[in-house]
Amino acid sequence: MIKDSQPLPCLAVTMGDPAGVGPELSLQLLANQDLAQLCTPVVFGDATILERVATTTGLPFPNTVVSSLNDANSPALLDLKTGLADNITPAQIDSAAGKAAYCYLEAAITAAQNQQVDAITTNPLNKAALHAAHIDFPGHTEILAHKTNTTDYCMMQVSNPITCSFVTVHVGYQEVPALLTIDRILTVIELTHKALTQIRGPEPKLLVCGLNPHAGEDGLFGNNEEENIIAPAIAAAREKKISAKGPVPPDTAFTPARLKEFDAVVCMYHDQGHIPVKALAFDQAVNTTLGLPIIRTSADHGTAFDIAWQNKANPSSLFAAVKLATQLAP
Amino acid sequence: MIKDSQPLPCLAVTMGDPAGVGPELSLQLLANQDLAQLCTPVVFGDATILERVATTTGLPFPNTVVSSLNDANSPALLDLKTGLADNITPAQIDSAAGKAAYCYLEAAITAAQNQQVDAITTNPLNKAALHAAHIDFPGHTEILAHKTNTTDYCMMQVSNPITCSFVTVHVGYQEVPALLTIDRILTVIELTHKALTQIRGPEPKLLVCGLNPHAGEDGLFGNNEEENIIAPAIAAAREKKISAKGPVPPDTAFTPARLKEFDAVVCMYHDQGHIPVKALAFDQAVNTTLGLPIIRTSADHGTAFDIAWQNKANPSSLFAAVKLATQLAP
Repeated sequence: MIKDSQPLPCLAVTMGDPAGVGPELSLQLLANQDLAQLCTPVVFGDATILERVATTTGLPFPNTVVSSLNDANSPALLDLKTGLADNITPAQIDSAAGKAAYCYLEAAITAAQNQQVDAITTNPLNKAALHAAHIDFPGHTEILAHKTNTTDYCMMQVSNPITCSFVTVHVGYQEVPALLTIDRILTVIELTHKALTQIRGPEPKLLVCGLNPHAGEDGLFGNNEEENIIAPAIAAAREKKISAKGPVPPDTAFTPARLKEFDAVVCMYHDQGHIPVKALAFDQAVNTTLGLPIIRTSADHGTAFDIAWQNKANPSSLFAAVKLATQLAP
Repeated sequence: MIKDSQPLPCLAVTMGDPAGVGPELSLQLLANQDLAQLCTPVVFGDATILERVATTTGLPFPNTVVSSLNDANSPALLDLKTGLADNITPAQIDSAAGKAAYCYLEAAITAAQNQQVDAITTNPLNKAALHAAHIDFPGHTEILAHKTNTTDYCMMQVSNPITCSFVTVHVGYQEVPALLTIDRILTVIELTHKALTQIRGPEPKLLVCGLNPHAGEDGLFGNNEEENIIAPAIAAAREKKISAKGPVPPDTAFTPARLKEFDAVVCMYHDQGHIPVKALAFDQAVNTTLGLPIIRTSADHGTAFDIAWQNKANPSSLFAAVKLATQLAP
């Protein structure tokens, strides 16, 4: 196994949707000398696509192309030769591209499950392309959970200025309240506590948001979700010696003073945390899925078709994701 | 009328809940020489309370105390002598304090309706104290709307880094979707356009948020609120020659690039805008109510009982509110 001969953590980095910015970010990653000091990234993708993108963007094609992980002793492209998307058009939703992106992810998951890699970092999928290929998952997280038979997991976004974990994510606004349960919120608090202990050290301080404006203001707004669901979950976490405070009014959770005081904010819904993360840590935040049996991080952006194959994509979020995966790797 | 003899705009500044930070902020305001160059603030409150707060905090008691607005030719306290809250305890919810705060606001509204003042700036109310006094309004905005028989109004928060207006505000999370209508969203876009034209100049650029994560991602999440309600409102606004873009994914509306490009963001619910405002412009944002027949601004914070009567309250938001009222005054 590759791990035995590798002093550095080995990461499977999926190429993402071939029509998006994933291929050029993969080229930038494999050319980066600094990251090669921290880990050995292996891009799971197709050489045919990366050749086209290298030609179009002027980015260097990787020095090392392998057909087996056993041969990847330095940053390398693992050429999966899917042949699925060789002729795609950049920046177009295409079922072939969706299918290819899914193959890269499947291969990376298998490699992680077989302990051939220490962690996975993913480049963006295009959901519409996935759906066109009849792959009916909302995104990476759900695919990873399905493939690893995981039920208790959550998304966390990590950056220096702000770190948030999420009780619900890719559901409609209206569906959120029915998904909030004491058990689910407690699970997310526990997962967040465990991950933060690894990233920031012992006894991390967590802040938990309410659902309603002003956290319901003592029952004036909403259906007492704070009193009946969120507060009991926080109390249960405290009984387990987790430092969790709340529920606080959501708009007071992300002030400079609060972000300085707390290591992470537990959010009830997608935009409660994604709005301040993108406002305060644009291009810096890293997405990670907590609770999986394998480590997984990803850049905090989409396929960005508007700038795909133009060498305009900023690799900082992917690079931060690679660093976080290295930090979380066993 | 005072207006005729005043070269500067005259503002009614309510003292707010006597047990909160409103009184000490009022003292700071009346002592501020810079603001006195821009306008003539007249604090609507009780001298008995302000004497106690001046003694406790060491802040100067105002030089000019008047019993009638006609005598207020310089920054002054208009002593309303309500006698309601003379013996209150600082930082305590008290129906007497709630009632007194309501009296100050009523007097300010009457003065504005009689054109004795050019605008109102409000210090914070305590909602629980109001309710204890059986005054059943969620806050200032609803009182102002009721007293002026206004139905089409909205909240806007203004600051240099970020300005947001709101389609819904003080309602539970779950109630928001049912309150979104094409007419209501169009009204808020129009009110925002009008106010921004006054504050920032002609042809302001507005960005309109979706409701669901990723603005529904083409119907993947939510109940098509973006396609059925928000997009038609934006189209109607554009037909009226208003520059409005959207609906955009809410978490992409507050990135540095977007905030630089647009003059204001139209938000569907309270925390969609209040979270980034408090994250990016803490202590700077000013609250204003658009659509009223009178100009009204307020500080963007509450009664802050934890620091009340301790001379720790930061007056920058109140001062910014006074400046904005001066700017909006006819």
